[in-house]
Amino acid sequence: MLFSITIGNGYHIPRMFSRNIATLIKGTELANKIKSEVRNELINIRQTKPEFEPQFVAIAIGNNPASSIYLQRKQEAASYCGLKSKVIHFEDTISQKSLIDVINHTNKDPSIHGIIVQLPLPNHLCETTICNAVHPSKDVDGFTQTNLGKLMQKMSDSNMIPCTALAVKKIIESEGIETYGKTAVVIGRSHNVGLPIAIILGADKQKGGFDMTTVSCHRATPNETLASVCRNADIIVSAAGVPGLVDKTMVKPGACLIDVGLNRVKSETGKDIVRGDFNKNVSQVDCRLTPVPGGVGPCTVAFLMYNTLLAAKLQAGIMNQAE
Amino acid sequence: MLFSITIGNGYHIPRMFSRNIATLIKGTELANKIKSEVRNELINIRQTKPEFEPQFVAIAIGNNPASSIYLQRKQEAASYCGLKSKVIHFEDTISQKSLIDVINHTNKDPSIHGIIVQLPLPNHLCETTICNAVHPSKDVDGFTQTNLGKLMQKMSDSNMIPCTALAVKKIIESEGIETYGKTAVVIGRSHNVGLPIAIILGADKQKGGFDMTTVSCHRATPNETLASVCRNADIIVSAAGVPGLVDKTMVKPGACLIDVGLNRVKSETGKDIVRGDFNKNVSQVDCRLTPVPGGVGPCTVAFLMYNTLLAAKLQAGIMNQAE
Repeated sequence: MLFSITIGNGYHIPRMFSRNIATLIKGTELANKIKSEVRNELINIRQTKPEFEPQFVAIAIGNNPASSIYLQRKQEAASYCGLKSKVIHFEDTISQKSLIDVINHTNKDPSIHGIIVQLPLPNHLCETTICNAVHPSKDVDGFTQTNLGKLMQKMSDSNMIPCTALAVKKIIESEGIETYGKTAVVIGRSHNVGLPIAIILGADKQKGGFDMTTVSCHRATPNETLASVCRNADIIVSAAGVPGLVDKTMVKPGACLIDVGLNRVKSETGKDIVRGDFNKNVSQVDCRLTPVPGGVGPCTVAFLMYNTLLAAKLQAGIMNQAE
Repeated sequence: MLFSITIGNGYHIPRMFSRNIATLIKGTELANKIKSEVRNELINIRQTKPEFEPQFVAIAIGNNPASSIYLQRKQEAASYCGLKSKVIHFEDTISQKSLIDVINHTNKDPSIHGIIVQLPLPNHLCETTICNAVHPSKDVDGFTQTNLGKLMQKMSDSNMIPCTALAVKKIIESEGIETYGKTAVVIGRSHNVGLPIAIILGADKQKGGFDMTTVSCHRATPNETLASVCRNADIIVSAAGVPGLVDKTMVKPGACLIDVGLNRVKSETGKDIVRGDFNKNVSQVDCRLTPVPGGVGPCTVAFLMYNTLLAAKLQAGIMNQAE
């Protein structure tokens, strides 16, 4: 982009600024495609099986404003796809036992095919215990130990893969990125986001993976190590939750950058805005980049719909669980 | 080491050879310590609970000579520790259904606390399906999807962690190696060996991990990438099954090398010998190194005893499963 600056005497001096040359990966388009496919498949199935009514329940604890927005998006997506959804809301004083009782009850309800526990939970509730209480067949978030372990063993089409990891997988596939023998960096190691992504990137293609040498970084990774491994990476996925963590000096031209960060920050004018983990200046590198918002986020929601339909098909015997 | 070579005229010319300066990590010593601890704990428990008789069953299919040796070592270790063990042997024509029936029957037998399916299996049997048939509470190998998923979530003392990964974990701990923020390379990504090791090395200390930046390499990793990441690594764990894969040019002084490879090769004289994944010349680097044989192997067997006692304690209610 060519700008000019005005100096004291009124002359205009042309000045070359760094251009924004990165290609944006349109997550919203992929999300819409996935949702349309879910919607169409559901219409098709219901032509012969009108009693097939996939439904998920979201369990929400307390009043987290971000959670409310996410829940609303999930319900809107469900409505578009023709899936039934409902939210059960509890005060943040609910005991672990009561919450598990609710989950057990929902596990047994044949009209419910998917159960989502909206995270984060209040501190007195153990996240893994609560998530593991969901029956694996209804675990459309893919957060139970059973479904995480399945992911380690292999990634079949009947696996309930965590939605964000599935979003990253499908973005890479839809971009047609060559991955065999290439190097990936995953920043963030949570068991339900960073770690599943690293496992998929590193896994054998025959197991549903990408055959990449995979570097897992996290808060204990020194800055210089992070910069150095990122500079060699063909794909960088950041799920660190640190706004602007990766900047243009850490990105190799030709790389694909997938931004899982969704950080609420104040703009210069004091407005609440959302920023990713990649600094905006990575746009000056010739790379591919998912925007925030409008990148991974909508795909994650779309794959929740995909997993709900999958769970309902498996429960109805329309599809079989792979070995 | 100072050698001399004799030249034609009978003079001896001193010649400096590269010295072997690596420190060997005595896996056998750690293994003996673990087995003694298991033995002593068992004696202690039986003083008040003489009916407490931990027992594992190993299911062996076909006639793999290597498997026979491993089984024998497991039985010897069990005998030393005071654990009961038995081997059930089947022809390699056994059907998957029959084998799963046997496992289901053993799952229900209260006198059996641990079930081991000796790998590899004949091609007509699906390894993950067979391993997942073992009840997670009796899965002393830690190969079921449930126990693998638990490992992703956290590594509590009541987890059944795959024995080789547990051996690597305890070797690093017993050597007192500083790991926080350091870099590890794991070569090999199998779901029951390489991947669990990478997860443990990368995990948060609060979850039982080592807080290392972790690079996962495998057969799709180009040689130059492997060499480059190894040269930067503070710990290299190789579980590739490729004799001599990592040589001295790929090792940084001060590194800790953990050799999970156990490769049967022919010696120069045609004898069957066992070689690790590290080239013998890594001994010329000032590093720490587990030998093969006598390194990780005996520790893996010892931790199978540890897991069997753990399983029996959990089943008897002597110890509680962590959340």
